[in-house]
Amino acid sequence: MLLPTIQQPEQLKNLSVQELEELAVEIRQFLIEKLSVTGGHLASNLGVVELTLALHYCFDSPRDKMIYDVGHQTYVHKILTSRMDKFDTLRKHKGLCGFIKRTESEHDVWEAGHSSTSLSAAMGMALARDLKGEDNRVIAMIGDGALTGGMAFEALNHIGHEKKKLVVILNDNEMSIAPNVGAMHNYLSKIRSDRHYLRAKDEVESLLKKIPAIGDRLAKTAEKMKDSLKYMMVPGILFEELGFTYLGPVDGHDLNKLIDTLTLADNVDGPVLIHAVTTKGKGYHPAENDSHKWHGISPYKIESGQVLKSVGNPMYTEVFGQTLVDLGKQDDRIVAVTPAMPGGSGLIPFSKEFPHRMIDVGIAEQHAATMCAALAMEGMKPVFAVYSTFMQRAYDQIVHDICRHNANVMFAIDRAGFVGADGETHQGVYDIAFMRHIPNIVLMMPKDENELRHMMYTALQYNDGPIAYRYPRINGTGVALDERLECIPIGTWEKLTSGEGCAILACGPMVEVAEEAEAMLKREGIQVQIVNARFLKPLDSAMLDHLASSGTAMIVLEESSQAGSLGSAVLEYYAEQGTHDVVVSLMGIEDRFIEHGSIKEQRAEVGLTAEAVCTRVRDLISPASGNLSKRSFPS
Amino acid sequence: MLLPTIQQPEQLKNLSVQELEELAVEIRQFLIEKLSVTGGHLASNLGVVELTLALHYCFDSPRDKMIYDVGHQTYVHKILTSRMDKFDTLRKHKGLCGFIKRTESEHDVWEAGHSSTSLSAAMGMALARDLKGEDNRVIAMIGDGALTGGMAFEALNHIGHEKKKLVVILNDNEMSIAPNVGAMHNYLSKIRSDRHYLRAKDEVESLLKKIPAIGDRLAKTAEKMKDSLKYMMVPGILFEELGFTYLGPVDGHDLNKLIDTLTLADNVDGPVLIHAVTTKGKGYHPAENDSHKWHGISPYKIESGQVLKSVGNPMYTEVFGQTLVDLGKQDDRIVAVTPAMPGGSGLIPFSKEFPHRMIDVGIAEQHAATMCAALAMEGMKPVFAVYSTFMQRAYDQIVHDICRHNANVMFAIDRAGFVGADGETHQGVYDIAFMRHIPNIVLMMPKDENELRHMMYTALQYNDGPIAYRYPRINGTGVALDERLECIPIGTWEKLTSGEGCAILACGPMVEVAEEAEAMLKREGIQVQIVNARFLKPLDSAMLDHLASSGTAMIVLEESSQAGSLGSAVLEYYAEQGTHDVVVSLMGIEDRFIEHGSIKEQRAEVGLTAEAVCTRVRDLISPASGNLSKRSFPS
Repeated sequence: MLLPTIQQPEQLKNLSVQELEELAVEIRQFLIEKLSVTGGHLASNLGVVELTLALHYCFDSPRDKMIYDVGHQTYVHKILTSRMDKFDTLRKHKGLCGFIKRTESEHDVWEAGHSSTSLSAAMGMALARDLKGEDNRVIAMIGDGALTGGMAFEALNHIGHEKKKLVVILNDNEMSIAPNVGAMHNYLSKIRSDRHYLRAKDEVESLLKKIPAIGDRLAKTAEKMKDSLKYMMVPGILFEELGFTYLGPVDGHDLNKLIDTLTLADNVDGPVLIHAVTTKGKGYHPAENDSHKWHGISPYKIESGQVLKSVGNPMYTEVFGQTLVDLGKQDDRIVAVTPAMPGGSGLIPFSKEFPHRMIDVGIAEQHAATMCAALAMEGMKPVFAVYSTFMQRAYDQIVHDICRHNANVMFAIDRAGFVGADGETHQGVYDIAFMRHIPNIVLMMPKDENELRHMMYTALQYNDGPIAYRYPRINGTGVALDERLECIPIGTWEKLTSGEGCAILACGPMVEVAEEAEAMLKREGIQVQIVNARFLKPLDSAMLDHLASSGTAMIVLEESSQAGSLGSAVLEYYAEQGTHDVVVSLMGIEDRFIEHGSIKEQRAEVGLTAEAVCTRVRDLISPASGNLSKRSFPS
Repeated sequence: MLLPTIQQPEQLKNLSVQELEELAVEIRQFLIEKLSVTGGHLASNLGVVELTLALHYCFDSPRDKMIYDVGHQTYVHKILTSRMDKFDTLRKHKGLCGFIKRTESEHDVWEAGHSSTSLSAAMGMALARDLKGEDNRVIAMIGDGALTGGMAFEALNHIGHEKKKLVVILNDNEMSIAPNVGAMHNYLSKIRSDRHYLRAKDEVESLLKKIPAIGDRLAKTAEKMKDSLKYMMVPGILFEELGFTYLGPVDGHDLNKLIDTLTLADNVDGPVLIHAVTTKGKGYHPAENDSHKWHGISPYKIESGQVLKSVGNPMYTEVFGQTLVDLGKQDDRIVAVTPAMPGGSGLIPFSKEFPHRMIDVGIAEQHAATMCAALAMEGMKPVFAVYSTFMQRAYDQIVHDICRHNANVMFAIDRAGFVGADGETHQGVYDIAFMRHIPNIVLMMPKDENELRHMMYTALQYNDGPIAYRYPRINGTGVALDERLECIPIGTWEKLTSGEGCAILACGPMVEVAEEAEAMLKREGIQVQIVNARFLKPLDSAMLDHLASSGTAMIVLEESSQAGSLGSAVLEYYAEQGTHDVVVSLMGIEDRFIEHGSIKEQRAEVGLTAEAVCTRVRDLISPASGNLSKRSFPS
């Protein structure tokens, strides 16, 4: 076993290529074993074993900056940089992060969870290097899927213009997470498959050598053609046109070729793009055969590849996906739009039923949002299905193209709230705060999966502008699903208990937490009212007025950034009404980024638990204790 | 005169090309005359006279959808669609909008102020058309500058893949607003300038015809080459590779050629890109010679081209630009980054002094933000100079790459607050609301240009993460500028008056409005305190505690979305402290989009005036009147 002897990446330089190949086998075994217990991003990491080995063999980390796009494909990098012993804690609370993490290692120079940022990072690091007069290398590795993101093109355009020395490794595995879409993908496929491209150069050159014999006129033409020749011969002409030297395609599992190509790239002045072709899931048959399923995987049995799924109620995502099929049957104006997440967003059933009304735009949230606006203006009913965290990419388009146009776009915002093991780069805790101030939009969140279905129906019937429903990355409550769907009146909340006393205004899964707290408090003889604050905009002003006029103290409970979200909206409402003598207490997420762990652990970390709610209620109703003591300042 | 006879665009179809050419002359005269009085976007509109005429001649608006990217280049379209008589009110309050506006005309099918959205809109409209089984045409016109925006590439990638029938007109004038940058620009220049490209096709074909005589082997090679031939001959190979049929380059001022090309394009199945080369400012020498200056122009003398500038104090932008030069001399880590707005952002002096530390990335806010994060990590001190409205494009990158990394990026947020004549697409009224909830960031706004300079210095000295200063698109107050710059303690506000009574917490230019109100109220015998709330995050908790404990009623006055901005932050602070008996009244911008007009008119429209502040103060201090009556609900 070589692997246990590797403590630092520079040790790789002393190995032969054959030893590196042995190491690749050992790394794959290690990953397949470890991830069978912890789960994680298996397929993509199996695909980059040789690439990562070659990088650390040819370059000197951390002096040379190795930037990985969407940092979930860095398990091999982590193994090679002294973190092998931490894999039992992968993606667990306080354990090894599933993404690149600067605090974990000096070799982690760029953190990314969202895709397509690596080229911009590389450009910044290359610029800084040159301004400082230093000479380290900068290498970015980006997948073909991430290359469809607009900001990657913005960076290509800038790098190609400035001609900075840096190396881009295009890890082309024909997949982002879902099968890839887009013209760029078609282009790469053509390069890969068309051997003709690769032979053309020699043949054309030999052809040209014969031409002078034919006559002067043709000789002159041939001369003129020389400058143009590369346009016929270079497979990566698109990248060459953008100012890059293109090298490839190269087999991304052939260590000899990778090392040769990286060495060659290092000798080119200016930006180089290496087109490496890899296989996702390489070396583990179940993952090779279905790399989409094995992108992010739960624990599994190694032999059979059988995934050990925890039994539970259907996820919100599944209920969304199935309900969308039902609605799609009733209304042929519905079009589902996804930015490269058809599976993760539960859209596979819809895509099977209505292939022409399912539009996967690639990793392109900005384009998706604006396209939805245009679809809506032309009378369609687009559903933009997107994770809360990725919707951040489309903020401007939501303001400028959807809400300003008051277009009838429906947003299905998945993974709202904590997301668990993906951690701080993927938390869906800002969307209320970044959408609530945009005019014209309606924002909803259901307390359970049955209410989600009614909200989807409500959104479909609503024709006065954009409307969103957001739901968490968890199993539903298991509640019965109503057959008949009905409209929920816009801006109405639901009082769930008829009790007196302190009111808890909760949304989404926090309603369940409130109910737990209510049961606990009841045993102490304390009564609370629970309000399902299912509209985050507009608020239920009648209910808010009633609560204020009855002198009820309120807690706003939300799994969302405390700054700017629902609690903030409630406070604003009362201030606008001139209702200044009301007691509103906020329970949201404090002003910091929350790392990976289970959702339960994340909630506990920020105090979004039934116990914490009980404590807050006790504080509020007992003037002698905690919070209320601060209410009156000494005069 | 033909122009006055044109009431509807279909009338163009009855004209000869010669008459269209006459019309073009008349339109140019009209624009030059009208804009000499009103100001507006002259150069770009003079550049698209023939293009717009050809579009309306060849296609049927509004049945065919004409989509203009960044809608400021649609004056000709407005003239041709019954709005000629409204040009005296161009960009004025309640007058003709400077951009495309759906409420103005059925011919305005897509509103845009921000660039690069047209291709996504075209794709949405083409998709909707096909789903509905209709057959109208979809045509998008996009500038070469807008093409550098990432979302335009996202759309190209999607359109080229889906092969929808639509026409993209690339209006290549070698300029976005500033001279264009980027590899795409270099590529287009090469096509334009290299006549060789255009002749290559014929010559290669004649060459190939001779080849069979040479021998079998070569004949076979030639055969194999045929598929590849287009890679040598087609000037727009980059677009062809992305799935488009490329037509061009065509002279964008030659009506005959434009009409031929549009007709040809209409007969192609699938997406077509027409590369039209135009001259910005065409037909008016001052504008042709300096199209950058004449992009958006104030009123001018037609004969001389002399711009009639109103005399006034230096703009905040100018003070920023000059101060950055001063700081740049002291600290060579400063790098200025602009997304295609070096002039508008006041960066020309810096770029002259420090050409290597001035980075124009093109219209690429996402890339710019992430690149700044990387620059900061490598020890540089990047200043991301960006308009508030365009910063919306970089929201995700600010969260994910700058604030999550806690990178030392400085934001110079220009055009914060109302922007006047550009109107609702450009208002800078959301940045507090979309940034305040992001952990780690510091947000400032100066009350005058002198304080801006101190804030810039403060930001430079600050090394604990991202820090932003935002300033308005107005002239400074004319205050004296301190020679010696000093750090403002983070999170401290400034009490400007020592009075008692109601406190006005104001930021930025609202401080001046508060001061006006204070003077007016003083004459009535009402005292107010003015607080310069110069930090929007973190707040001055000591001052807030003091105000609460002294029982002072407060008005938060801000030229910013009332939802989620400073007022909201103050309310949250008190709620978090359990200070529930405080009176905080909000004066911000209500929850709707505010259209074009002067900044003064826009403020008046939403009640951000000294008079309105006086009224609010009177309400607050008189329990019998208005707002305070709502404080206590009947029990």
